[in-house]
Amino acid sequence: MQLGMIGLGRMGANMVRRLMQAGHQCVVSDLNPQSVSALVTEGAIGAADIADLLSKLEKPRAVWLMLPAAITGKVARQIASQMEPGDILIDGGNSNYRDAVDLAAEFASKGISYVDVGTSGGVWGLQRGYSLMVGGPFEAVKTMDPILASLAPGHDGSGGTPGTTDTASQGYLHCGPPGAGHFVKMVHNGIEYGIMAAYAEGLNILKAADAGNEKRAADAETAPLHNPEYYRFDIDLAAVTEVWRHGSVIGSWLLDLTAQTLKDDATLSRFGGKVSDSGEGRWTLQAAIETGVPAPVLSSALFNRFASRDNDEFANKLLSAMRYSFGGHEEK
Amino acid sequence: MQLGMIGLGRMGANMVRRLMQAGHQCVVSDLNPQSVSALVTEGAIGAADIADLLSKLEKPRAVWLMLPAAITGKVARQIASQMEPGDILIDGGNSNYRDAVDLAAEFASKGISYVDVGTSGGVWGLQRGYSLMVGGPFEAVKTMDPILASLAPGHDGSGGTPGTTDTASQGYLHCGPPGAGHFVKMVHNGIEYGIMAAYAEGLNILKAADAGNEKRAADAETAPLHNPEYYRFDIDLAAVTEVWRHGSVIGSWLLDLTAQTLKDDATLSRFGGKVSDSGEGRWTLQAAIETGVPAPVLSSALFNRFASRDNDEFANKLLSAMRYSFGGHEEK
Amino acid sequence: MQLGMIGLGRMGANMVRRLMQAGHQCVVSDLNPQSVSALVTEGAIGAADIADLLSKLEKPRAVWLMLPAAITGKVARQIASQMEPGDILIDGGNSNYRDAVDLAAEFASKGISYVDVGTSGGVWGLQRGYSLMVGGPFEAVKTMDPILASLAPGHDGSGGTPGTTDTASQGYLHCGPPGAGHFVKMVHNGIEYGIMAAYAEGLNILKAADAGNEKRAADAETAPLHNPEYYRFDIDLAAVTEVWRHGSVIGSWLLDLTAQTLKDDATLSRFGGKVSDSGEGRWTLQAAIETGVPAPVLSSALFNRFASRDNDEFANKLLSAMRYSFGGHEEK
Amino acid sequence: MQLGMIGLGRMGANMVRRLMQAGHQCVVSDLNPQSVSALVTEGAIGAADIADLLSKLEKPRAVWLMLPAAITGKVARQIASQMEPGDILIDGGNSNYRDAVDLAAEFASKGISYVDVGTSGGVWGLQRGYSLMVGGPFEAVKTMDPILASLAPGHDGSGGTPGTTDTASQGYLHCGPPGAGHFVKMVHNGIEYGIMAAYAEGLNILKAADAGNEKRAADAETAPLHNPEYYRFDIDLAAVTEVWRHGSVIGSWLLDLTAQTLKDDATLSRFGGKVSDSGEGRWTLQAAIETGVPAPVLSSALFNRFASRDNDEFANKLLSAMRYSFGGHEEK
Repeated sequence: MQLGMIGLGRMGANMVRRLMQAGHQCVVSDLNPQSVSALVTEGAIGAADIADLLSKLEKPRAVWLMLPAAITGKVARQIASQMEPGDILIDGGNSNYRDAVDLAAEFASKGISYVDVGTSGGVWGLQRGYSLMVGGPFEAVKTMDPILASLAPGHDGSGGTPGTTDTASQGYLHCGPPGAGHFVKMVHNGIEYGIMAAYAEGLNILKAADAGNEKRAADAETAPLHNPEYYRFDIDLAAVTEVWRHGSVIGSWLLDLTAQTLKDDATLSRFGGKVSDSGEGRWTLQAAIETGVPAPVLSSALFNRFASRDNDEFANKLLSAMRYSFGGHEEK
Repeated sequence: MQLGMIGLGRMGANMVRRLMQAGHQCVVSDLNPQSVSALVTEGAIGAADIADLLSKLEKPRAVWLMLPAAITGKVARQIASQMEPGDILIDGGNSNYRDAVDLAAEFASKGISYVDVGTSGGVWGLQRGYSLMVGGPFEAVKTMDPILASLAPGHDGSGGTPGTTDTASQGYLHCGPPGAGHFVKMVHNGIEYGIMAAYAEGLNILKAADAGNEKRAADAETAPLHNPEYYRFDIDLAAVTEVWRHGSVIGSWLLDLTAQTLKDDATLSRFGGKVSDSGEGRWTLQAAIETGVPAPVLSSALFNRFASRDNDEFANKLLSAMRYSFGGHEEK
Repeated sequence: MQLGMIGLGRMGANMVRRLMQAGHQCVVSDLNPQSVSALVTEGAIGAADIADLLSKLEKPRAVWLMLPAAITGKVARQIASQMEPGDILIDGGNSNYRDAVDLAAEFASKGISYVDVGTSGGVWGLQRGYSLMVGGPFEAVKTMDPILASLAPGHDGSGGTPGTTDTASQGYLHCGPPGAGHFVKMVHNGIEYGIMAAYAEGLNILKAADAGNEKRAADAETAPLHNPEYYRFDIDLAAVTEVWRHGSVIGSWLLDLTAQTLKDDATLSRFGGKVSDSGEGRWTLQAAIETGVPAPVLSSALFNRFASRDNDEFANKLLSAMRYSFGGHEEK
Repeated sequence: MQLGMIGLGRMGANMVRRLMQAGHQCVVSDLNPQSVSALVTEGAIGAADIADLLSKLEKPRAVWLMLPAAITGKVARQIASQMEPGDILIDGGNSNYRDAVDLAAEFASKGISYVDVGTSGGVWGLQRGYSLMVGGPFEAVKTMDPILASLAPGHDGSGGTPGTTDTASQGYLHCGPPGAGHFVKMVHNGIEYGIMAAYAEGLNILKAADAGNEKRAADAETAPLHNPEYYRFDIDLAAVTEVWRHGSVIGSWLLDLTAQTLKDDATLSRFGGKVSDSGEGRWTLQAAIETGVPAPVLSSALFNRFASRDNDEFANKLLSAMRYSFGGHEEK
């Protein structure tokens, strides 16, 4: 079928490619004309702006947004104002699910369906397919089925859980009414933060397994290491992550990538350690807090990212200041 | 080759089966004679006790222990006292790696090699193979290679990380001197706790996505839910875990099992929620603490397990008592 | 001066008493007529409803709300609709500061000043005075100064930080524009949760100092206690909290109360351990999350309260289910 | 009475001064001869070394060690080897309580009593008195009573919890057999870390209350701030900590010090934010972990200190590397 795609970053561009490979026709637009022309050379139809894009689609039209969360709402309203009853507008980005709840209600009054799709798969989605979590009105989601089926992995080698007959085993799922797709994707990313942190903390402990070989200061500001003889290991992290990939309980796709990364550069020298967060981890915790659900692991993972960007600096200065004020402790 | 196996629980018995399928000869012993006779009918040689087992093995002998951590050290010393120089004793259980460091030094003086093998794979290892993290003297580990190679998955379908040529890509790895195997397995399990908790917390948040449909008390002891309209989703957890298996960033073997579990019984009615921990998570944190490595996610996961067994009860009573004493708050 | 007080629960009633002791005249109202008549016998002027209360106050009027957060906004709007330009409406309860930001803007257009006062001190405030964190327009806060000064502890024995000349050293502070008072009080309560949890966790560890005297199961589901000889203490928690009150670094008012509580009943038998939270801890974390500030201690304290009310039950069942599915582990 | 003091750092020297003010005679020794001569000018008897110190004390002798944890055990054994039955050796430093358990048993066989005293009060102890948590044999602790009573605050203005008649209300307590004193002090410091972190996190959130005034990037790597209008406060932290000192629930001695610190320098410019930990926080968590007691708040506080010293760097690089590998995310 035909689809308009607005936003041709890493995700949007690859999704267009995967759709065209499956035989769909894509009309594409982006603030950056080079992003458009690159895809035009691969078979897409370029559009100069929203009006142009809408004019190049047959009615009823389906337009997919793949934009940063901070601007999605504004663009969605611009497009909806130029759409007609029966058209479908899809937000496939990492927006707050509350926006989908609100915008869907707003657009529904004009007869326009708003569909929110949580899209996981990253830069590998072109090849592996994307895992799609979909929220929205039943009819609109049904209309989009050919697109969703093509973006998703489909009946991949791994096979579904035995007995599964719905689309979930092909990698896409209608999770519920507007907002449900982004809600599920939000929690997906919250979990992702937690899993990533679990690996990172564990590998950091393995890296420190040689602590007994270092000399430690014997002053009142330094905790002594009582049994250095138990910390004299020199662990090969690339090899360990590789062995875990085969038969262990913690095997995962993230581990596959991590093993490759450590094999390529065990010191991770090109990274500085300032870890971004793009919103979903925050919103996941807000949902946990509002509904009274404990989420200590997911929150620790998020707060570590904040701290990696030095947002804990003032708190740490305060701790040093308190230690000085009650105990005369100077910072080391 | 020939191997003695002591401890025929879920893990030990299946490992014997996998070894026999690969053509190895196993002499087996267990406190429970029925566990022994069951494996004898499958081709193993039964032994009445340690002395009998040692007498039925050709020298130099290799004996593998698969026992609860609390008794492994005692049994290891009993066996070692009846062994001869050149013999190899292996601990494949979930022991504290410090025991391996100590016992290896103790036995080395008698010419006996002590090898510690972290064994991951659970009840699925018979079929999938076990991921093996090995510590010990180079020669002894080399001698054990045929056994390790048979227990490990080998060149499974998943393939190693491109460029990998060592045994890690077949699922077993000599991690370092005595203790290194159990150290790596310890951290593996610490990570496992974190990953499990990440999924569990996230799914619990999804389960609470319908909180806006409930009526909430409007008293001073209850936090109000400001926007109930954003919490009216009824999420199908079995379907969601299934869709995440296909193309998402958080795909993993644990997720595969979880999807199946939720498909079989979405309410998990047969479980009460008292979560055991078997030691490695604790030791992982002790290593983190002693070496000064932050591990907030792994510690949160561990502490939650403690709390699931109500070990937080007195602390919670104290909190209620404080609230009463300063604010007159009665427990709801 | 004259003040109307609506909401005569534990906090509101005592505040009226403290104000009357200082010579102020209070017109009081509550849904419960007995709460009103009780204060009338102590010298307050009773009012049947909002209209009655407003009619009994001289203009410009000042009305203080001391109500559960869930209904404050609604009542505030009712009153404001009956007020006139120049009147002052004060919310002294535990409302979300965002409500104050919104309501103040809404009422300002009608010439009514909205003042938000965070009020700490609990049931002891009548005797000790209340610590007051105030947000609102400068003129209105200035008008309320006699009331604030009387509610606050004033120049109590403890004395201000040397060099302090403003009202903070008397226990009340104009923190900023509308919302600032409740924002500061919100964070105050977030800190309170953290401090309470720190004491509770520590005392729980002291209580478990006799763990080495218990027999522990030696199975694969139970982590062994390696050195029981180090856990044979029988600590008197009431005596310990008492000794900490004198000269230690962790002396505090909460500790004073805790020592008394434990002296009265060391087993805390009248409490069940279901710990309520009334909103501010949640909002503190939402502020932390939105502004990217790490708050792992405050979040742990909050999530523990959630878990004390068994909101972690489904997550824990999932963990047990995962353990069963990969390792055949039965719950103990 | 007479006391030998070894270790004249901040704590040891002030304790000698307080004891001399109470009329006790102190024989003092330190590796630094200037520390000795300074106290000699104030009335102490100087000693060149252990033998000299022991020779200047009447039998039975009492010697107090105030040394870094890393060397206390070694020095204790040196002194004990030169002592006689009936002598008392006291460790007042921040040693691991396990050392006291072990050393007390070792020295008891020679008739020497080992007493462990947890000493809280910091640089203020000289003036305020020290809170003392004591472990050791009943007779030896009784013998030391005059010294303990003089070091402790005694019947200070604050008064004991009503009904308290034992020494706890004067600031010293015999907590139990050898090790009990250091065990209780260990947990005291664990709690201290938690309380400090609660204040620090909360104040950091207050500091960020102006986040809505900053411009935020609108890219896929940055979480948007949905409601900047709620984050436009400019909070005076010195004033806020001052107001909390008067009547609030979170009043404490640490808060008193913090208010003074912020008044002196609101930016804390002389501190860098590398927060030391001296061991007790670590040991508190080890006790929690070994006895299965949840301590998420105390552990978060400890791990933050580790992270403040950049021990999380490798973990953070891993997180960035994972984000790059699955999503092509570049670090900002």
